[in-house]
Amino acid sequence: MSETLTEIGEFGLIDRIHELLRVSGAPVPEKTLGIGDDCAFFQPRPGYDILVTCDCIVEGRHYLTRFISPVNLGRRAMSLNISDIGAMGGRPLYALVSLGLRADTAVKDVEAMYLGFVEELNPFDATIIGGNLTKSEGANFIDITLIGEIEAGKSVRRSGANPGDALLITGYPGQAAAGLQILLKAPSVHDLEDHPLVRAYNTPSHRAREGWAVAHSGLATAMIDTSDGLLGDLGHICKESGVGALLIQENLPVSSALQDAARQMKRDPIDLVLKDSDDYELIITCPPEHVDGIRSAITGLNDIPVTEIGRITEMAGDIKLKSADGVYHNLTASGWDHFSTLG
Amino acid sequence: MSETLTEIGEFGLIDRIHELLRVSGAPVPEKTLGIGDDCAFFQPRPGYDILVTCDCIVEGRHYLTRFISPVNLGRRAMSLNISDIGAMGGRPLYALVSLGLRADTAVKDVEAMYLGFVEELNPFDATIIGGNLTKSEGANFIDITLIGEIEAGKSVRRSGANPGDALLITGYPGQAAAGLQILLKAPSVHDLEDHPLVRAYNTPSHRAREGWAVAHSGLATAMIDTSDGLLGDLGHICKESGVGALLIQENLPVSSALQDAARQMKRDPIDLVLKDSDDYELIITCPPEHVDGIRSAITGLNDIPVTEIGRITEMAGDIKLKSADGVYHNLTASGWDHFSTLG
Repeated sequence: MSETLTEIGEFGLIDRIHELLRVSGAPVPEKTLGIGDDCAFFQPRPGYDILVTCDCIVEGRHYLTRFISPVNLGRRAMSLNISDIGAMGGRPLYALVSLGLRADTAVKDVEAMYLGFVEELNPFDATIIGGNLTKSEGANFIDITLIGEIEAGKSVRRSGANPGDALLITGYPGQAAAGLQILLKAPSVHDLEDHPLVRAYNTPSHRAREGWAVAHSGLATAMIDTSDGLLGDLGHICKESGVGALLIQENLPVSSALQDAARQMKRDPIDLVLKDSDDYELIITCPPEHVDGIRSAITGLNDIPVTEIGRITEMAGDIKLKSADGVYHNLTASGWDHFSTLG
Repeated sequence: MSETLTEIGEFGLIDRIHELLRVSGAPVPEKTLGIGDDCAFFQPRPGYDILVTCDCIVEGRHYLTRFISPVNLGRRAMSLNISDIGAMGGRPLYALVSLGLRADTAVKDVEAMYLGFVEELNPFDATIIGGNLTKSEGANFIDITLIGEIEAGKSVRRSGANPGDALLITGYPGQAAAGLQILLKAPSVHDLEDHPLVRAYNTPSHRAREGWAVAHSGLATAMIDTSDGLLGDLGHICKESGVGALLIQENLPVSSALQDAARQMKRDPIDLVLKDSDDYELIITCPPEHVDGIRSAITGLNDIPVTEIGRITEMAGDIKLKSADGVYHNLTASGWDHFSTLG
């Protein structure tokens, strides 16, 4: 039997985590206080704004332990917060990790989860400086607050899109959500680990470096990550910017893996691209003359495509799709909504 | 029937919260971005360190809805985070509120909770700038990250206590935990609202202003709040400072309400003072010649007593109590431990 939290207790677990972070995490910067006091503290860099985001995932709702290993769960939970910092153009610095854990949780699983956290933080020299442990009677949960920095005034918001702007997307949104569907329908998940869509689900990429490059180019008018799905997050841009959008169906990026999966699921691949997400691509808007500039800011960082999928229009909240036959369809910006989508 | 979260949905609830904060919260400072983007951001003050803390309370474990109103629950959840900022000597600035809520939760209860949050934040002109809403299948939970500031280098840590230092405590620790015991044993809680110990439990005071004053006096060597109980948190100071402590029993502050309750519960009042807490007093250490200075830094802010209860000793981790008959007793610094105290 694996050692459980009951056996080592809260303060025993804190000591283990402390040791793991000392060995495997990036060093805590000078003049920064990490775990072990009433608060953590750090010295902000002059001329920089502080960014802060917070995202919580709950077992059974946002992840299923039979599909994802503890280390990948840690990576995923941290990635989605890093994605939020990146979608403003910032760089992650410090994380606070708040966990709700059942007393029978295996200590080694918690340690593996922390390894996942630091695997995602280390490339940025970002560190875990605090958090909270509490006993959960029901589902485990992982609630992360991530703090980042950005040069003052450089952050790219949702609210800056203008009619006529080009609409860009990185990568292939919808792959991770399709990967989840594949896992849910498979009789056994063992041989699916290397399926490209399952990989997209279990180890999603954030685009924080790309977001940083876009913000520093100064060319984008709005940016957001696709955590609520392409359509849901495009809806957020439209709402906050008071604009509409026109998507060109034939321009939407559909990976060959997603094409295959859509065929097997008997779903329209465009539906998979537009709706559920669980991957963390970036939607970027910019004046048409800056599309090349945005592209070259991102190119060189990695080989993900940056696709122009439509443009921003005038009528607030009006989102349309022009299909290959030239017909215009009204779309509802129905992102991921926890409460109202319940049966 | 009250309107529930299922009816208005996640984004409906976000709109309600947004509106409530606009009407009832302190105004979001200039150059600060609140709720409504991938991240919040703010501009830190030059010459100040950023403090950050995070505390989570879970229904059924840290609070029982039959004992505490939603507005008091909000006040309590925010107070315990404010207490952590205060225990370093800082001032709260920004909160992120992450809630796990069952779909059948009443919207008005969530709104009342937010009113509780802002009631505690407004006196500091502190604002809620972000958070997260997620559906809980089991217990509701409230996870708050609170960000504060302190002049660079002024924070008072747990690790600075020296042998020979005087040991001070504010107020009457143990009252809130005794209030909870009274509630748990009462056949009906209706007529108990005004009981002083129940009040201490339902609307605990933080000592953030006092902590700020202590830090700015520059006279304290260590400070901590009593969230893990007087003994538990004294244990944290001893561990981090590599020292021991001697408590003088007859100096421990016992309120008359706690005396009465101890008699009724057939418990030793000293036990109630030392062990469970749930109130947020400050333990402060300082060289004996600075006791008066610390006292006068706090006096004038309010009329809580500051009591000298013993002194710091040399032997690391050795905590003793000298009883009225002159006998020395060994104490174990057993604070509040979530996992190992389970049956």
